[in-house]
Amino acid sequence: MQEFKIAIIGAGFMAKAHSMAYATMPMFFWPAPAQPVRELLIDVNEDSAAEAAARFGWNRSGTNWRDAVADPSIDVIDIATPNHLHAEIAIAALQAGKHVISEKPLARGAEEAKAVYEAAQQTNCTTMVAFNYRRTPAITYAKKLIDEGRLGKILSFRGTYLQDWSASPDSPLSWRFRKDLAGSGALGDIGTHVVDIARYLVGEISSVSAQARTWIPERPVPSGTVDKLGAGGDANAPKEPVDVDDEVMTMLRFDNGAIGSLEATRNGWGRNNFLTFEIHGTEGSVTFDYEKRDQLQVVFASDDPAERGFRTIYTGPAHPNGEALWPIPALGIGYGETKIIEAHDLFEAIVNGTQASPNFADGYQIEKIADAILASADNGQWVDVAGLE
Amino acid sequence: MQEFKIAIIGAGFMAKAHSMAYATMPMFFWPAPAQPVRELLIDVNEDSAAEAAARFGWNRSGTNWRDAVADPSIDVIDIATPNHLHAEIAIAALQAGKHVISEKPLARGAEEAKAVYEAAQQTNCTTMVAFNYRRTPAITYAKKLIDEGRLGKILSFRGTYLQDWSASPDSPLSWRFRKDLAGSGALGDIGTHVVDIARYLVGEISSVSAQARTWIPERPVPSGTVDKLGAGGDANAPKEPVDVDDEVMTMLRFDNGAIGSLEATRNGWGRNNFLTFEIHGTEGSVTFDYEKRDQLQVVFASDDPAERGFRTIYTGPAHPNGEALWPIPALGIGYGETKIIEAHDLFEAIVNGTQASPNFADGYQIEKIADAILASADNGQWVDVAGLE
Amino acid sequence: MQEFKIAIIGAGFMAKAHSMAYATMPMFFWPAPAQPVRELLIDVNEDSAAEAAARFGWNRSGTNWRDAVADPSIDVIDIATPNHLHAEIAIAALQAGKHVISEKPLARGAEEAKAVYEAAQQTNCTTMVAFNYRRTPAITYAKKLIDEGRLGKILSFRGTYLQDWSASPDSPLSWRFRKDLAGSGALGDIGTHVVDIARYLVGEISSVSAQARTWIPERPVPSGTVDKLGAGGDANAPKEPVDVDDEVMTMLRFDNGAIGSLEATRNGWGRNNFLTFEIHGTEGSVTFDYEKRDQLQVVFASDDPAERGFRTIYTGPAHPNGEALWPIPALGIGYGETKIIEAHDLFEAIVNGTQASPNFADGYQIEKIADAILASADNGQWVDVAGLE
Amino acid sequence: MQEFKIAIIGAGFMAKAHSMAYATMPMFFWPAPAQPVRELLIDVNEDSAAEAAARFGWNRSGTNWRDAVADPSIDVIDIATPNHLHAEIAIAALQAGKHVISEKPLARGAEEAKAVYEAAQQTNCTTMVAFNYRRTPAITYAKKLIDEGRLGKILSFRGTYLQDWSASPDSPLSWRFRKDLAGSGALGDIGTHVVDIARYLVGEISSVSAQARTWIPERPVPSGTVDKLGAGGDANAPKEPVDVDDEVMTMLRFDNGAIGSLEATRNGWGRNNFLTFEIHGTEGSVTFDYEKRDQLQVVFASDDPAERGFRTIYTGPAHPNGEALWPIPALGIGYGETKIIEAHDLFEAIVNGTQASPNFADGYQIEKIADAILASADNGQWVDVAGLE
Repeated sequence: MQEFKIAIIGAGFMAKAHSMAYATMPMFFWPAPAQPVRELLIDVNEDSAAEAAARFGWNRSGTNWRDAVADPSIDVIDIATPNHLHAEIAIAALQAGKHVISEKPLARGAEEAKAVYEAAQQTNCTTMVAFNYRRTPAITYAKKLIDEGRLGKILSFRGTYLQDWSASPDSPLSWRFRKDLAGSGALGDIGTHVVDIARYLVGEISSVSAQARTWIPERPVPSGTVDKLGAGGDANAPKEPVDVDDEVMTMLRFDNGAIGSLEATRNGWGRNNFLTFEIHGTEGSVTFDYEKRDQLQVVFASDDPAERGFRTIYTGPAHPNGEALWPIPALGIGYGETKIIEAHDLFEAIVNGTQASPNFADGYQIEKIADAILASADNGQWVDVAGLE
Repeated sequence: MQEFKIAIIGAGFMAKAHSMAYATMPMFFWPAPAQPVRELLIDVNEDSAAEAAARFGWNRSGTNWRDAVADPSIDVIDIATPNHLHAEIAIAALQAGKHVISEKPLARGAEEAKAVYEAAQQTNCTTMVAFNYRRTPAITYAKKLIDEGRLGKILSFRGTYLQDWSASPDSPLSWRFRKDLAGSGALGDIGTHVVDIARYLVGEISSVSAQARTWIPERPVPSGTVDKLGAGGDANAPKEPVDVDDEVMTMLRFDNGAIGSLEATRNGWGRNNFLTFEIHGTEGSVTFDYEKRDQLQVVFASDDPAERGFRTIYTGPAHPNGEALWPIPALGIGYGETKIIEAHDLFEAIVNGTQASPNFADGYQIEKIADAILASADNGQWVDVAGLE
Repeated sequence: MQEFKIAIIGAGFMAKAHSMAYATMPMFFWPAPAQPVRELLIDVNEDSAAEAAARFGWNRSGTNWRDAVADPSIDVIDIATPNHLHAEIAIAALQAGKHVISEKPLARGAEEAKAVYEAAQQTNCTTMVAFNYRRTPAITYAKKLIDEGRLGKILSFRGTYLQDWSASPDSPLSWRFRKDLAGSGALGDIGTHVVDIARYLVGEISSVSAQARTWIPERPVPSGTVDKLGAGGDANAPKEPVDVDDEVMTMLRFDNGAIGSLEATRNGWGRNNFLTFEIHGTEGSVTFDYEKRDQLQVVFASDDPAERGFRTIYTGPAHPNGEALWPIPALGIGYGETKIIEAHDLFEAIVNGTQASPNFADGYQIEKIADAILASADNGQWVDVAGLE
Repeated sequence: MQEFKIAIIGAGFMAKAHSMAYATMPMFFWPAPAQPVRELLIDVNEDSAAEAAARFGWNRSGTNWRDAVADPSIDVIDIATPNHLHAEIAIAALQAGKHVISEKPLARGAEEAKAVYEAAQQTNCTTMVAFNYRRTPAITYAKKLIDEGRLGKILSFRGTYLQDWSASPDSPLSWRFRKDLAGSGALGDIGTHVVDIARYLVGEISSVSAQARTWIPERPVPSGTVDKLGAGGDANAPKEPVDVDDEVMTMLRFDNGAIGSLEATRNGWGRNNFLTFEIHGTEGSVTFDYEKRDQLQVVFASDDPAERGFRTIYTGPAHPNGEALWPIPALGIGYGETKIIEAHDLFEAIVNGTQASPNFADGYQIEKIADAILASADNGQWVDVAGLE
């Protein structure tokens, strides 16, 4: 089995998730498309880098991501940093001929993402953006049903991603609340997952009409690193402005005529990680709720009307990637499993010399949609989203 | 106990629901504010009228609603007809000095509703629009929590009303699909219930941005009366155009700064009567799902974070109107109970000489919002909704 | 339409529920099998009787149930009293040639029930025990599926009825906690509903192995009448012993080879009216949860394994009694609707000269099962239940 | 960090799960109590062993578990074989001075388990039985609430574990249907997980009354290895008898006075991995459903009655082991995470020189309970369970 040496940039929870996936992917998918090698972990802080390398099982550590990019032994660059570094690292990595997986969103907006996309166009490298939720087997199964025409023509999509980890004004001003570091707020952080799922399942988004709000205009500045979401802050610290959205609502129009809506918020008390969607077609519907992620709810119009209704379908060996996971589906799919499938798909694309999905073209398109959403929220108009030329 | 003689115009399922409520309201609310007397039932068809009067317990029947309006013994006119007759009957009834309850929506649009509203302004009669769902005790309890400030400042509202009874193109072209008879489609039929709930719980709606679709452009013409929703048709009958919306999505802005969204469709396979909402405030959230209507889900930000989460609160004797219903809340609230409470509130307003809620001013305002939604769906702009002058 | 004059014994919440059903049954079922006439309401307290008669729409009131039984104009006796009076009244009514509907349970035990049963055997009168929950359309539909063999051979039944209205030791010692008045506790009060459903859906119960507990051995004695469940008490009042079960668990064996279990408690904090069952057959399963009573969950083994799963079937016009209720099922079935269907089935049996289901033979059999459960809880043995000779 | 060399016996799905846990445990728990080293994987088939070692990341492979036990470099023996080998391997491993983790159940019955237990008593080695579900953070949190007295005195426990992977008579006769290989059927396979949870949360079980059924008396013999549950069979192959239970129901009595019930079946169409429990105490209740495993439902009697109800508590950093998992709880806990926590707890016990929980004494006690359940199912009596002397 071919080995690929990876350098990961970042030492936080995403580094943990990706490391887990690289360490275990071949256990699930066998024969694996390739053997990922955890070679080099980069963090600006030397001690953090060394500790994370030890913890997450990487052979070496370093403090400068440029060293990783310049290292000829490295095949794959994995970008698990805050958003403001995604583009710069990705471009450099692509120019150095590396395959690249970037955490989402690809960049802080379409302009920055375009540069990444164009850099990718100049290479034959495989690229991927880590929108992992679409890899939940139930979502992949929804994709299969739609592609096979089982739901008929798609009429409408409704998606939500609701959280409450920053609903309190005491929640600190981490990088996720600063436009210069994050690009946008709830939109980029969680809303783009829904955009990715909408494009994956329904098709290209052609225009949007949106509104966005920053409910908590300033937050206490954390003294040190805020390692975990919503933790690590001091409510009495001096406050500085939040310049990104706390909540965004948008309507969607798809190229194929379907319509949709999306809501993302980090201020929804009681909602922990409420990622849901509902899709209506002329021949059936599906609904998904990540809190019950072992299952997809599906209804077929063709069923006997007296016995027609949403069916609880547990994804298992008979469903996409189910063979690789657990013999009984509801043994339990978790965040880890989505990342393991993601790692599989990345390396499958690499060894096949193809693009992954979603790749940097998708990542760029998603940024165009995100920009259009923010523009619409600003100007109160429907804003068209240009396709890739 | 004072008696009030009612004339009801209509002999369909709404006549059944209202008759049940009048017959039993004092059994639940005691002492009742008044004793409703089922005096006169009107239907254009003489046999239908007579049969419905017998079935629903009305003393007399007739075929001309003008007779009811002209009858000095009648105190209250109850309009349970298709939408196109609401305004004309209501205006005549008001001019004759009757109290009026009208099924929703009040009219086929704001212009028509305005005339009704202005007629109501000329009288001291009590008016009510029969948006019954807001009377589900769990929703009334949500109102109480919000009014008491328990959820803090309201940030956002999301409402859905999804059905599938006309998702098939074989479903007949009943009056509900004809603009001249219904005014609008899913919007007026079910979407206005959500608009009513949004106004009731969150406040006045100031502007909207919407999209609407007619998914099934023509439907088979029914040969006779289509008594029941979605039934009675012949799929092979000649087809005629549908000129109302099958689905509408809209974003909302409220006077108080909250934002919102609403989706109504009759083409959502698998959704039977999916009326839900979710409201986020700075101090808590509520969610409601009419399929689990005995309960409200509530979370309070002030709870210990380790044990904070949506609570399943069953509405009972300790909650609004609960004393009147069943000693144990989840014995089961149904459609009937919402109509019984509605009847109580109507007669309470009548005997007190006050307006009911929602009344014809509300009904007019809801039509202005509905018109704004359709206008926005047409012109792609945010459309402001004027308040009552 | 033939009229039948009813005398009801009792003025509490059950009198309300039955009155509502009599007043509105023909509105739902048309042509109705008969016209129930609310003639005479009896309560020991003269004022209570008069007030209840006015409130619930009865023509006359009285204080002695024997007058009702002796009244030749009365056709039907409706027993809505505490349990200790059921048998005596029922026997007298039967001996006077009246049709009888009794609230459940039929008596305080099998011996008492046997006398009622034998009195019924001596007449041609129609009898019914008011186990209303089985009349939820979703449960009736489960019956239909099972009778048609759609679930194959039934293997197992699991039922629960969990409440919390008396989970607090401050909840007063109403008649429901006194063996002389109630016969048993949670078993008779709510557990027998599950026994009724189990017999209805699966078949005759042949033996049981049970355990029962009285968790709260004494409760404060209420000073006056305790009108509502769990209300009306004074926590500081003197306490007296509870001599009935607070909770019962039992295993079941059915004549047809199926096995089962049942749990009933009034001490399950957080459970309001948690009536559920799950039935597994060789060809499919059904589950029901009264909190989502508009629907039945059904799975068929014959479905394609990749898309097999519980279907959410909303009961509507295509399902038993659905035509009589609401045109869209999830408009909402409530406690009232179960009682309306019950009233229909009672009068249908009366006019047809047949026995209702469940009738006094069923009521007697259920008491034998209840006695067997208590005996087993006492002696720790499986206890057989004799069939009707 | 101290390294411990593990030899795992088995190459199936449990080997996958344990390998994943060993590879990633320190990524989650840091500093980890120890570094597990995947040294030696044993399977009777040489090729299978070599392939599994490569796939799951083990340094060496072999075909004879006795070699692993005899290997002085091995510190820990991990038994992931079919049940009939658990005891023999465990005893040999203990006698060789190894720490031992065994998949559940510990043995094919109490007699066999006793020998293992006694072997464990002769050593200072750490032992663990891999009842992983109790390590779901929500269950661990329930344990914490109960231990702190937050639910008061525990009154009752109800647990279910329902599956359908062998509900079809065509499902092959794998080792799980043969008493000589499995010991028991649904009871040992899944019911013991519930027994483990019941003992963990409520306390020692003192007696049981049970019934058990073999619904499908014979099944087709698989020609080769049946790798996955329910797969790999040929419905037309010759059939042989099943001599274990397909379904078991039992009532429970606990030492502390609580009562309980348990149902386990592999014939419950529509149930995939339905592991649930509900516990009532004098001061509150908890319910858990593994399909929504990110959350625990908790109600406290001390809450204001008007707002008392089950709360949806998502387990996260503030809850047991939450710090080690994901920063937002509902990012998603899966089967993998339960095994990672299990691995942590095993090595923590090893380095501390303590017993793990559940250990072989627990495993033995659970086998005594399982034997008592089968004995009761046979003799129809309540059967007492002796404690450990």
